[in-house]
Amino acid sequence: MPIRVTVWGENVHEQNDKAVAENYPIGMHGQIAKLIGEDSNLRPTTVTLQDVDHGLTVEKLANTDVLVWWGHAAHGDVRDEIVKRVAQRVWEGMGLIVLHSGHHSKIFKRLMGTLANLHWREAGERERIWVVNPGHPIAKGLPAYFELKNEEMYGEPFSVPEPIETVFISWFQGGEVFRSGLTYRRGAGNIFYFRPGHETYPTYHDATVGKVIRNAVSWAYNAESQSRLLNSPNTPVERAVEPLIERGAKLAHHPE
Amino acid sequence: MPIRVTVWGENVHEQNDKAVAENYPIGMHGQIAKLIGEDSNLRPTTVTLQDVDHGLTVEKLANTDVLVWWGHAAHGDVRDEIVKRVAQRVWEGMGLIVLHSGHHSKIFKRLMGTLANLHWREAGERERIWVVNPGHPIAKGLPAYFELKNEEMYGEPFSVPEPIETVFISWFQGGEVFRSGLTYRRGAGNIFYFRPGHETYPTYHDATVGKVIRNAVSWAYNAESQSRLLNSPNTPVERAVEPLIERGAKLAHHPE
Amino acid sequence: MPIRVTVWGENVHEQNDKAVAENYPIGMHGQIAKLIGEDSNLRPTTVTLQDVDHGLTVEKLANTDVLVWWGHAAHGDVRDEIVKRVAQRVWEGMGLIVLHSGHHSKIFKRLMGTLANLHWREAGERERIWVVNPGHPIAKGLPAYFELKNEEMYGEPFSVPEPIETVFISWFQGGEVFRSGLTYRRGAGNIFYFRPGHETYPTYHDATVGKVIRNAVSWAYNAESQSRLLNSPNTPVERAVEPLIERGAKLAHHPE
Amino acid sequence: MPIRVTVWGENVHEQNDKAVAENYPIGMHGQIAKLIGEDSNLRPTTVTLQDVDHGLTVEKLANTDVLVWWGHAAHGDVRDEIVKRVAQRVWEGMGLIVLHSGHHSKIFKRLMGTLANLHWREAGERERIWVVNPGHPIAKGLPAYFELKNEEMYGEPFSVPEPIETVFISWFQGGEVFRSGLTYRRGAGNIFYFRPGHETYPTYHDATVGKVIRNAVSWAYNAESQSRLLNSPNTPVERAVEPLIERGAKLAHHPE
Repeated sequence: MPIRVTVWGENVHEQNDKAVAENYPIGMHGQIAKLIGEDSNLRPTTVTLQDVDHGLTVEKLANTDVLVWWGHAAHGDVRDEIVKRVAQRVWEGMGLIVLHSGHHSKIFKRLMGTLANLHWREAGERERIWVVNPGHPIAKGLPAYFELKNEEMYGEPFSVPEPIETVFISWFQGGEVFRSGLTYRRGAGNIFYFRPGHETYPTYHDATVGKVIRNAVSWAYNAESQSRLLNSPNTPVERAVEPLIERGAKLAHHPE
Repeated sequence: MPIRVTVWGENVHEQNDKAVAENYPIGMHGQIAKLIGEDSNLRPTTVTLQDVDHGLTVEKLANTDVLVWWGHAAHGDVRDEIVKRVAQRVWEGMGLIVLHSGHHSKIFKRLMGTLANLHWREAGERERIWVVNPGHPIAKGLPAYFELKNEEMYGEPFSVPEPIETVFISWFQGGEVFRSGLTYRRGAGNIFYFRPGHETYPTYHDATVGKVIRNAVSWAYNAESQSRLLNSPNTPVERAVEPLIERGAKLAHHPE
Repeated sequence: MPIRVTVWGENVHEQNDKAVAENYPIGMHGQIAKLIGEDSNLRPTTVTLQDVDHGLTVEKLANTDVLVWWGHAAHGDVRDEIVKRVAQRVWEGMGLIVLHSGHHSKIFKRLMGTLANLHWREAGERERIWVVNPGHPIAKGLPAYFELKNEEMYGEPFSVPEPIETVFISWFQGGEVFRSGLTYRRGAGNIFYFRPGHETYPTYHDATVGKVIRNAVSWAYNAESQSRLLNSPNTPVERAVEPLIERGAKLAHHPE
Repeated sequence: MPIRVTVWGENVHEQNDKAVAENYPIGMHGQIAKLIGEDSNLRPTTVTLQDVDHGLTVEKLANTDVLVWWGHAAHGDVRDEIVKRVAQRVWEGMGLIVLHSGHHSKIFKRLMGTLANLHWREAGERERIWVVNPGHPIAKGLPAYFELKNEEMYGEPFSVPEPIETVFISWFQGGEVFRSGLTYRRGAGNIFYFRPGHETYPTYHDATVGKVIRNAVSWAYNAESQSRLLNSPNTPVERAVEPLIERGAKLAHHPE
């Protein structure tokens, strides 16, 4: 059964910036979905900020195995209740791939527990992405490194938690480095942050970038939902797995 | 120079539950501060939910090296702006020790990026806390295990991120296990979650519990503030560390 | 294409201990292979200590995707050159599942970089294995916990490195806890340690144990070989990816 | 009480390579010890490969809190029994700082469980070391980055285990990146790998490099010895912490 992938696009720069519109005539979300669709086991659809509930209705999320997120100009326009809804699905087990400037999206900062800051420069410089973890599924089929002729620079320190694993590290022409591929799990949901993808450059027309995103989607997919992680149930003394006799003082009104 | 420790107490059950009031006549915060003060290098003070800004004014936080948090009944009463203020200090480098039911505090959930759920039972059962990482500074001077005759049970899965290190694991009489000592860093701030401490039992009168909390405070202390992590500055092309000539398309209005 | 799984059995207690022989008439390796074969995507074969090269010839290892290891009485009889050969295949990307007393095998200690010590008791007590990481692929399809009526106790501290992820934690009737499912990667090879499996008890007749082992084998499988990790090549100045002019002093004879 | 630091130097190139001899007239070990001694809380001494037991007698190791290791040309000359002796002290809690080409030392490979390979180039190129984890004790007092005008290049993939934390990442002029500061624990012993230090360049005359090494030594220091991790004791049924009645089959001769 194919993996149901929802690509979320902010779709703002495509409408108001000529360079971006020319670069991505079918929208960044459209182009990212096209890359994903090259794997017949992945079934991508797209939604955007402008859709009802930003396209992230309860039903759509219930039918999403992996969500891919690109945003930049309008992070603040994403409604808090939708962010909460997405977070709950991640905690249940939905995969989440956060691309480039999505590091400052509400959903990524919420799941990281940090501001996810960095320093940056838009100068079209060369980025060389090194595979530091060649045995990781997300690095499958990749060369030792790949290059993007023009990219925005993101420099360390990237204020995110120590990841489960670091997969990629970028070298920038202007002298910086950046951890460009990082894995996390929050609740049952797998999360991958992938750095490249500035809107004025043709990053999502790059074949290797496409392969990374497809690998990441396949890696993040979780066949099971773990909705029990959304609750903190009481396991009363009479249902304890070992025989137990209650003792000691009890709260008059237990708050949980 | 002593480490400035602020103990935050919810101070609700001490006022409205007889068992708790008798157990902790100087308040739970008062008793926790007393344990901390046994190390002359630690200088504890206490604040509570009922204080102005819950005691966590800008000035107080600026003068706090490590914050210790106990809450249970009134997590929802902690104002969001104060939670944000505490989170910013953690990201800058303030240490944070979260005790027991504090796992459901707004600040802990915000920093973990998860719901921090678990399953639980208030039956006064025996808890045995095993040191699984005896070389960790927080385990310094501890025996192979220590016991609490009466504790609330917290059972796995504990929906928190994979920690940097696991220091303690608890065995419960009723048949459950729990990762009882977990370390994290968010921004520059060290975080330690320590499980024991149900308000109706004399946990914070236990000498070994005191030693753990003192060890944790000393470990979490960070001499430097890293306020730069609160920003995402531009490093323009003319200040690049390597000579760089700008090229490629640029956004008309860069959002960051 | 099915995953080629080699089950390595020590095959000593099956020959000289009546309880073990009765428990595992087809050998422990035979029974473990039988469990693995319940997944049609896994193709298990067995080899034992007594075979030429302990069954781990260059050819056999070259045709092994995942190696499963059970040993206890004769760790010292495994020849060092074979251990080295297995380690090299792991570094290249072969998966390795180490079961129970295999924690003291030469190959596991070599790959962990520690003595992998613990404390233990053979009393047929009850073990309850809790899933602490329900979103991990190795926990797929498992209940919240599962029990083994009789098992050898292994108690913390287990002197292994902090794992990539902790999947299971065991509760023992006699009062101990143990991290029973731990993931590692060494070079490109995925490693999973799974605690249960004392030879006098019917552990490898348990359906849930079988499911865990099958999940672990599938998780550990790595489609690619990364033999380049076996070398430390020179990348001379004329092949540097960025133009570079050599400068500074050089060693007369570079040792690497 | 000062921390007792032993600096181990291979002392081969200092004797047979003119560039190295001129660069380090008091030996590399002498110069490294000098850097360490700038902190009055650290008491460094030096030993070399040529000393009896390579200077690492049982007594010397018993009186060493943190061992600093530099070697390159003669890794193979270090006797296996001495490597084993050092490893045991690390497992007990002695800190270990491995510098530069020490990545290929027997002791580092033994403790990592990998070959610790990489690719390299001796061209005197510029290395810029970025702090990616500014809240870590080893980064205390450091700027955002520091540069070494001439260094040997080490490039990823560095085949070491995923570290507990990544502290530094290097940018190289020739286009590579490298994880230059990595923390591990093996048994109770803290380990830090720090990349810079090619013998033909003046790296150990650099003030920031000195600060990193001093920070690393202070971080690695462990006040307690955990010699119990060197054993795997039996905890028989009559000494179980919970009352237990033995049941089930037992091995006639338990091998452990």
